[in-house]
Amino acid sequence: MIARPMRRVVWAVILIGSFVLSSGAHLAAEDLASWNEGPARQAILDFLKATTDASSEQFVPLEQRVATFDQDGTLWVEHPMYTQVLYCLERIPAAVAKKPELKNIEPFKTVLSGDREAIARLELKDLEAIGAATLGGMTVEEFQQEVKKWLATAQHPRWKRPYTELSYLPMQELMRLLRANGFKTYIVTGGGQDFVRVFSESVYNIPPEQVVGSVGSTKYGYDKQGRPILTKDAKMLLNDNYAGKPEGIHMLIGRRPSAAFGNSGGDREMLEYTGAGRGATLMMLVLHDDAKREYAYGPAQGLPETKVGAFSQSLYDEAGQRGWTVISMKRDWKRVFAFEP
Amino acid sequence: MIARPMRRVVWAVILIGSFVLSSGAHLAAEDLASWNEGPARQAILDFLKATTDASSEQFVPLEQRVATFDQDGTLWVEHPMYTQVLYCLERIPAAVAKKPELKNIEPFKTVLSGDREAIARLELKDLEAIGAATLGGMTVEEFQQEVKKWLATAQHPRWKRPYTELSYLPMQELMRLLRANGFKTYIVTGGGQDFVRVFSESVYNIPPEQVVGSVGSTKYGYDKQGRPILTKDAKMLLNDNYAGKPEGIHMLIGRRPSAAFGNSGGDREMLEYTGAGRGATLMMLVLHDDAKREYAYGPAQGLPETKVGAFSQSLYDEAGQRGWTVISMKRDWKRVFAFEP
Repeated sequence: MIARPMRRVVWAVILIGSFVLSSGAHLAAEDLASWNEGPARQAILDFLKATTDASSEQFVPLEQRVATFDQDGTLWVEHPMYTQVLYCLERIPAAVAKKPELKNIEPFKTVLSGDREAIARLELKDLEAIGAATLGGMTVEEFQQEVKKWLATAQHPRWKRPYTELSYLPMQELMRLLRANGFKTYIVTGGGQDFVRVFSESVYNIPPEQVVGSVGSTKYGYDKQGRPILTKDAKMLLNDNYAGKPEGIHMLIGRRPSAAFGNSGGDREMLEYTGAGRGATLMMLVLHDDAKREYAYGPAQGLPETKVGAFSQSLYDEAGQRGWTVISMKRDWKRVFAFEP
Repeated sequence: MIARPMRRVVWAVILIGSFVLSSGAHLAAEDLASWNEGPARQAILDFLKATTDASSEQFVPLEQRVATFDQDGTLWVEHPMYTQVLYCLERIPAAVAKKPELKNIEPFKTVLSGDREAIARLELKDLEAIGAATLGGMTVEEFQQEVKKWLATAQHPRWKRPYTELSYLPMQELMRLLRANGFKTYIVTGGGQDFVRVFSESVYNIPPEQVVGSVGSTKYGYDKQGRPILTKDAKMLLNDNYAGKPEGIHMLIGRRPSAAFGNSGGDREMLEYTGAGRGATLMMLVLHDDAKREYAYGPAQGLPETKVGAFSQSLYDEAGQRGWTVISMKRDWKRVFAFEP
């Protein structure tokens, strides 16, 4: 317990400190150390200057500073497949053991065949069916424990490292810099909200309440001992992709972001919505054009459009028309991962 | 822009200050000045001591400190009718002018009759129909402007004051004290999330992103000039009452609260869910037993159960069994409103 006069002093110091930090953009050379000089880095600096300079017409008041980040392909690696899909696929044998009739129906038949190409062609509705079969009926705490356990051992086939180490260092720096300038950083992912919340704090320093994602319903009830529980029943309440992203942002945050970051068609509406707001705005798309250090995919690369993370020609064109900044992984990032030099 | 060394100093001061503030419960006599000595005030003090004392077995880490508050009847007056219902009712003539066929069908017929008793008997599905007819089709910004305008002029029939002045001073003190002890305070209301978010910051110092409420869907689209907009289409995505409260808390916050405050059967599941968590917990119910300074209603008063804010005998009994604390407005509150002595 602190005596009242001492508390006043402490609060005064905090308030003054916060005020000092909230006046003007905070930036040091090392804050964006993994970014090369160029239009992408410059767009970030210009945005910070405009939003935090109280004399600027584009100033954004502290409490309104919101930045939203897609996850898969924007904050971490999404190839060869979304991490969450891999998690669900690995749970299928157990689900089939409980319900043998699944074995002979799609999409379970395809998954059990082990045919990786066919698995990669599964559609959203197939993935939903897999999600419902593998997750439904667990309590939310059981699910969290399961995901934690899985993440501790699962490894990416290329780097032989946990998926949680495959976040992009330049994006981590960008998030830290935005936070240092008073922005609340949110993940807005097409992935499952409950899944990403398990590791958002340890990987991105983003607390669970700042993760917006696709939402499967839960059901309140009581266990055999009469204790209240929430069980996943996996009815899709929000498909946080495409138009679902601004709708989900409104539902969970209730403010329009000033900055939004994505890498695929599923992020288009979030960037459009952000760009239509007042004050300075920043919209950026990560282009995967670095086959050597990561991957190169999407028609903007002259490569076939993959189902996940599709950076289509039309998205590329819209970015040009609306003044969105394309981040070239190859050109703009000095380093990609923290574990690499 | 602040030089790097100076920034380090400022951060260090903030961190040290925050650390000092986060060790041990922070409380001064004036923090709960509107509370009389008694079991309710004591329950709050005991809870703060247990959650913030790092040596306590019931210690709750800073980032996990979440407190959830029902709004109507818990933070502000809900009689004679929910403020939001009044807002919707006043919009009905305009809605009927646009769609004259509504005039002859229920629940619009009842509302237009002006029969206050019949209006007070409307059921949830009627209120939903009214909400859809009066709010559907507006953009979220238009809705916010409309609500702001209405709140600026509408007055409570008894006190002849804006509804936004009718919050309970003791609950305001309690929220401030919880925040001073590192708790994130959330509103978890059966009312419309978009409605409460309009004034949550000015009335309760709670930002919109910390308001969980009943959620009507929005639809992303483009206006005639091609600008992105979100339009309310008022399909009910979350009915944030009863089991919907813990489900909504999981969806929007993703953490189980340590403290929950309500006043009616609609808050029962939220309090149960909170009480089933780890560490110290605090569950409280506001009992309206003060006809002189506010209202007295509910069977716990030997009065007929009203439809809104029903504090039923079974809820009273459950509170006793589970160790929830009942706040008697009459006995526990020295002052009810800030505008009264």
